[in-house]
Amino acid sequence: MNMKKLLTLGAGLALLPVIGFAQEAAEAVEAVEEIVEVATSFDEIGPYIMTTLLFLVGGFLVFWMAAGFTMLEAGLVRSKNVTTQLTKNIALFSLAGIMYWLVGFNLMYPGEFNGYIGGFFNITVLEAVGLGAEDADLGYASVASDFFFQLMFVAATASIVSGALAERIKLWPFLAFVVVLTGFMYPISGSWQWGGGWLSEMGFSDFAGSTVVHSVGGWAALAGAIVLGPRLGKYKDGRVNPMPGSNLALATLGTFILWLGWFGFNGGSQLAAGTVGDITDVGRIFANTNMAASAGAVTALILTQLVYKKVDLTMVLNGALAGLVAITAEPLYPTLFGALWIGAIGGVIVVFTVPMLDKFKIDDVVGAIPVHLFAGIWGTIAVVFYNPEASLMTQLTGIVAYGVFTFVVAIIIWYILKMTMGIRVSEESEMRGLDTSELGMEAYPEFTKG
Amino acid sequence: MNMKKLLTLGAGLALLPVIGFAQEAAEAVEAVEEIVEVATSFDEIGPYIMTTLLFLVGGFLVFWMAAGFTMLEAGLVRSKNVTTQLTKNIALFSLAGIMYWLVGFNLMYPGEFNGYIGGFFNITVLEAVGLGAEDADLGYASVASDFFFQLMFVAATASIVSGALAERIKLWPFLAFVVVLTGFMYPISGSWQWGGGWLSEMGFSDFAGSTVVHSVGGWAALAGAIVLGPRLGKYKDGRVNPMPGSNLALATLGTFILWLGWFGFNGGSQLAAGTVGDITDVGRIFANTNMAASAGAVTALILTQLVYKKVDLTMVLNGALAGLVAITAEPLYPTLFGALWIGAIGGVIVVFTVPMLDKFKIDDVVGAIPVHLFAGIWGTIAVVFYNPEASLMTQLTGIVAYGVFTFVVAIIIWYILKMTMGIRVSEESEMRGLDTSELGMEAYPEFTKG
Amino acid sequence: MNMKKLLTLGAGLALLPVIGFAQEAAEAVEAVEEIVEVATSFDEIGPYIMTTLLFLVGGFLVFWMAAGFTMLEAGLVRSKNVTTQLTKNIALFSLAGIMYWLVGFNLMYPGEFNGYIGGFFNITVLEAVGLGAEDADLGYASVASDFFFQLMFVAATASIVSGALAERIKLWPFLAFVVVLTGFMYPISGSWQWGGGWLSEMGFSDFAGSTVVHSVGGWAALAGAIVLGPRLGKYKDGRVNPMPGSNLALATLGTFILWLGWFGFNGGSQLAAGTVGDITDVGRIFANTNMAASAGAVTALILTQLVYKKVDLTMVLNGALAGLVAITAEPLYPTLFGALWIGAIGGVIVVFTVPMLDKFKIDDVVGAIPVHLFAGIWGTIAVVFYNPEASLMTQLTGIVAYGVFTFVVAIIIWYILKMTMGIRVSEESEMRGLDTSELGMEAYPEFTKG
Repeated sequence: MNMKKLLTLGAGLALLPVIGFAQEAAEAVEAVEEIVEVATSFDEIGPYIMTTLLFLVGGFLVFWMAAGFTMLEAGLVRSKNVTTQLTKNIALFSLAGIMYWLVGFNLMYPGEFNGYIGGFFNITVLEAVGLGAEDADLGYASVASDFFFQLMFVAATASIVSGALAERIKLWPFLAFVVVLTGFMYPISGSWQWGGGWLSEMGFSDFAGSTVVHSVGGWAALAGAIVLGPRLGKYKDGRVNPMPGSNLALATLGTFILWLGWFGFNGGSQLAAGTVGDITDVGRIFANTNMAASAGAVTALILTQLVYKKVDLTMVLNGALAGLVAITAEPLYPTLFGALWIGAIGGVIVVFTVPMLDKFKIDDVVGAIPVHLFAGIWGTIAVVFYNPEASLMTQLTGIVAYGVFTFVVAIIIWYILKMTMGIRVSEESEMRGLDTSELGMEAYPEFTKG
Repeated sequence: MNMKKLLTLGAGLALLPVIGFAQEAAEAVEAVEEIVEVATSFDEIGPYIMTTLLFLVGGFLVFWMAAGFTMLEAGLVRSKNVTTQLTKNIALFSLAGIMYWLVGFNLMYPGEFNGYIGGFFNITVLEAVGLGAEDADLGYASVASDFFFQLMFVAATASIVSGALAERIKLWPFLAFVVVLTGFMYPISGSWQWGGGWLSEMGFSDFAGSTVVHSVGGWAALAGAIVLGPRLGKYKDGRVNPMPGSNLALATLGTFILWLGWFGFNGGSQLAAGTVGDITDVGRIFANTNMAASAGAVTALILTQLVYKKVDLTMVLNGALAGLVAITAEPLYPTLFGALWIGAIGGVIVVFTVPMLDKFKIDDVVGAIPVHLFAGIWGTIAVVFYNPEASLMTQLTGIVAYGVFTFVVAIIIWYILKMTMGIRVSEESEMRGLDTSELGMEAYPEFTKG
Repeated sequence: MNMKKLLTLGAGLALLPVIGFAQEAAEAVEAVEEIVEVATSFDEIGPYIMTTLLFLVGGFLVFWMAAGFTMLEAGLVRSKNVTTQLTKNIALFSLAGIMYWLVGFNLMYPGEFNGYIGGFFNITVLEAVGLGAEDADLGYASVASDFFFQLMFVAATASIVSGALAERIKLWPFLAFVVVLTGFMYPISGSWQWGGGWLSEMGFSDFAGSTVVHSVGGWAALAGAIVLGPRLGKYKDGRVNPMPGSNLALATLGTFILWLGWFGFNGGSQLAAGTVGDITDVGRIFANTNMAASAGAVTALILTQLVYKKVDLTMVLNGALAGLVAITAEPLYPTLFGALWIGAIGGVIVVFTVPMLDKFKIDDVVGAIPVHLFAGIWGTIAVVFYNPEASLMTQLTGIVAYGVFTFVVAIIIWYILKMTMGIRVSEESEMRGLDTSELGMEAYPEFTKG
């Protein structure tokens, strides 16, 4: 209801009883109308402005995660593959931005639809320049800010895939997969929950995307890792051959960047910031997000000391990230203690599932599958402990639905790519490194030995 | 108009007709006054608060671009010159901060002036501590926040010069140029447009500075590159000798930082955030800025594959940056598709003008001239396609005016510096690298070979 | 006072005189009540929302400083100790997050207490989800946002210690010290000033923590450096043996990150952003903070050229940081010129006290003691030049109180750790580097020589 109209109406009614005092009343009406002209209550436009601002700030923080994934992955691959990893990351982010505009955004948020799939190639159109308050969706936020924010999520999903398949995948087939993932796969399955589809109707709960974003990325990565096979020499004579990352400073920087970006990822997913309740909730989410990351890191720190007798920095980094993924499905309801133990179990998961993947000879270069898929599943289950409206069965239904859809479609796409373009570089290229063999450009031409 | 006064007046008038009911009326007046005491409408102070916040958030994002330029340039020079490049960047940013306070800010925004040049050494003075609403410029934002925001732009201009002239320029003459550029050249020409000068009067349109910031930096860099000459051995026997950057991970990080900062650069240039229309426009700008960068990167990705048969990461990075520069003159009016093709042409420009400069033996170490000057000119022309008020003739007038002024003055300053201090290190210093010969400090003392 | 109640009351009173016109009056009351229902003035909830937002944005900026310290330190140690330095930093941040929740926050902000020490293990509890405006502390901000913001400060304190003691301290004893520092030492002494304790009562002034945060970190680092002793071979035959950092690009990146984070550090410490006066003050603080950093950097630039005949990049970086520390005690009241000379003296302090520490054979690897302790003391004294309410005697009292408490307690803790766990790695470990000997993981396995 519009405040100005109400005030005018109210002023009119209030003056009715004294309408006989004509001259004075007319002046009074004029004065009141003048007031009404300048007065806009915070309720009217404040929430729209604040929520739009939340999406813009949250969005640039999640944008920053693209740099975080890039640095993390560049730090964890060997120096002969760094340029390729850098190229893949900036390219996937850019392609995601175009595909999500062309198809994804309106496919994911179709409004009225059958609950499973919306319309294709309904490109994103922004509001007019200098939008009037009367034309704005005052109960929510600007379309552009919402598009900007959501776009960063699809890019994060694609970044997850990039890390797991490093050091042996060809550039262009990888980017072809990114096009399908960001334009179609992620938006379709995303619409089931965030677009008001069947899982949302059923009561599935995934606040900022432990499943919708992270597990989906993880499933797509797992499918790719299986189809692609491990790096040459990774599993040999029953032994796992360690291939240490070339730059742990960059990997640590990447983790800090991701941690920072996650405040936008989870905090922005409150989708509102213009009331006392909403901004207070955003604060809860920030505090819980930080706690879960801290708990994941400390858990991995202590566990690697106890299990391996030596602290393992890459495990600590992945522990922090697993804590972040785990709290993402429900960063609002848990207490700080809740965030602590949910995040800590994320850390436990990483320490024990990284070697497990190696047992299955699934070669995940940066640990993306433990961090994003396994901790994502855990976080989605953990919702039931604090969110009074979540049920375990529905959570499991969602986890399975996203898993089956993404894994099956991804396997098919990867196979098609394998059969057509081929997805793996030649043995010789892999040995020499993708940077010289595929791109002809080394990341550190002056540093590396021989 | 002040709401409190209006409300009091209105309450008084409304009670006039019933003034005979003395006792009750007096109580009513008192009650209404009490209400008036606590009620401030959002219209009154909200826009001031939100716009000030926009400048602070936008400002810290553009500050962050200083780190972006630093990392980009440190990654693209050879390791023997990294310390020098780092030093130049932190020094130029710091000097810009002092010069803009001492001269630049009030020279650029002189208020009433002749349209060509304002008064010198009118240092920046901030508002009083704990400013009352009655003393604030409620239609705009706080002076300090505006100063903070604008300061970051002048620093960006200087950073552009730094990259082009890397690996052979002496530190102190470079810094002397920075003092002139940030204190005088940029503020004088900036005032023509953003200070309400003759170009602004004429209707020239440059929203966030494709010309005012980026081309100006590019022209100054071009003048410097000509006077300074190419690096030793860069052009030899008719061949262009590639001198690959020492750390592409840093260069990529720098690009992501710049991309992030650009949301503040363009978004903050809306100069208002406290109405529905303004914050919605800021959202449009964010979305368009991201699209242009993505399109520039993807274009360079595809073009380098087609033209050179290999993707070139440094071209992709510069493609993204050229997309950003191109959209900077008009990030508001274009549709997302408009942002896409404007940015894409930025990417095309980079791919084809980088080799062109080499033909003229102009040695631009990081590609700053294609990215900031050529894409800046393109972006300034592209304004006419979407902004209904822009005219091609006026845009060209502005481009030429900034070009002539900046290039001529820069050439003169560079020559004066060459004649007096000397601007180029000795051949021996250049061969050994500026880090050991000029600063006695290597950036990576343990990494580099021999 | 609640606006809705007042408006209802006022409407009622205003209609009293005309109560005889029964029918019309009833309608008027209804209309006015309807207005009241939707109208919330900005005064009521705006400041709460804006201040909460300030804490969240300020908090993520200060979070980012954790990455800054990490990069700075990783860049300034030798490559054989980089993994250890990275591990210490992410671990200390995570532990700080847990300890501050478990003990620190409520120990530091105990509300009513004796002025010296509050109650222990009073864990932090956040507000309810979806808090109603009637239950919120509308005069301040959300508890979670406040906790989030303050937590980042304690982590910064611990980071300061980490840098000074690099390259020879064992991981776990260091982390044990961090637990005591972040859970107990910092919160207890912090409560004296920011918790409303005896120093605050006395009129001590330390806006954002030149003393409360930076000097405390510096004193703890000094105590540690003394107990731990210098690195092997650092002081030999009366000569100071330079041990150059392995990656100045990272160190510079770290400095830029810290500089960026400092806008949140100082700006957020305004603790309010929802009035014209408060947001304008935050703007002043941003501008002054930037000026002090610039001045510190330029001073170190010029001084090292004059004194050593060569610009020293690490001094320039530390000069910027010292400028930042110096302005932290009073970033609001100084003019820009005040910020300039306060920051510049910070730069002077760094250039002259770094070699002084070496004379005393106190081995501070990254220069943390000059930057955070000495410039912190200077900044705390400098408050008296601009803040009309500060007195030199009280400032000195605070400086001494924090110094004595922190240094004495830290010395005791470090000795206890030395006697029990041992704090120093073996000579052999130190020679080989802590990364291989303690963690079995190199940061740059492919880069370093032999």
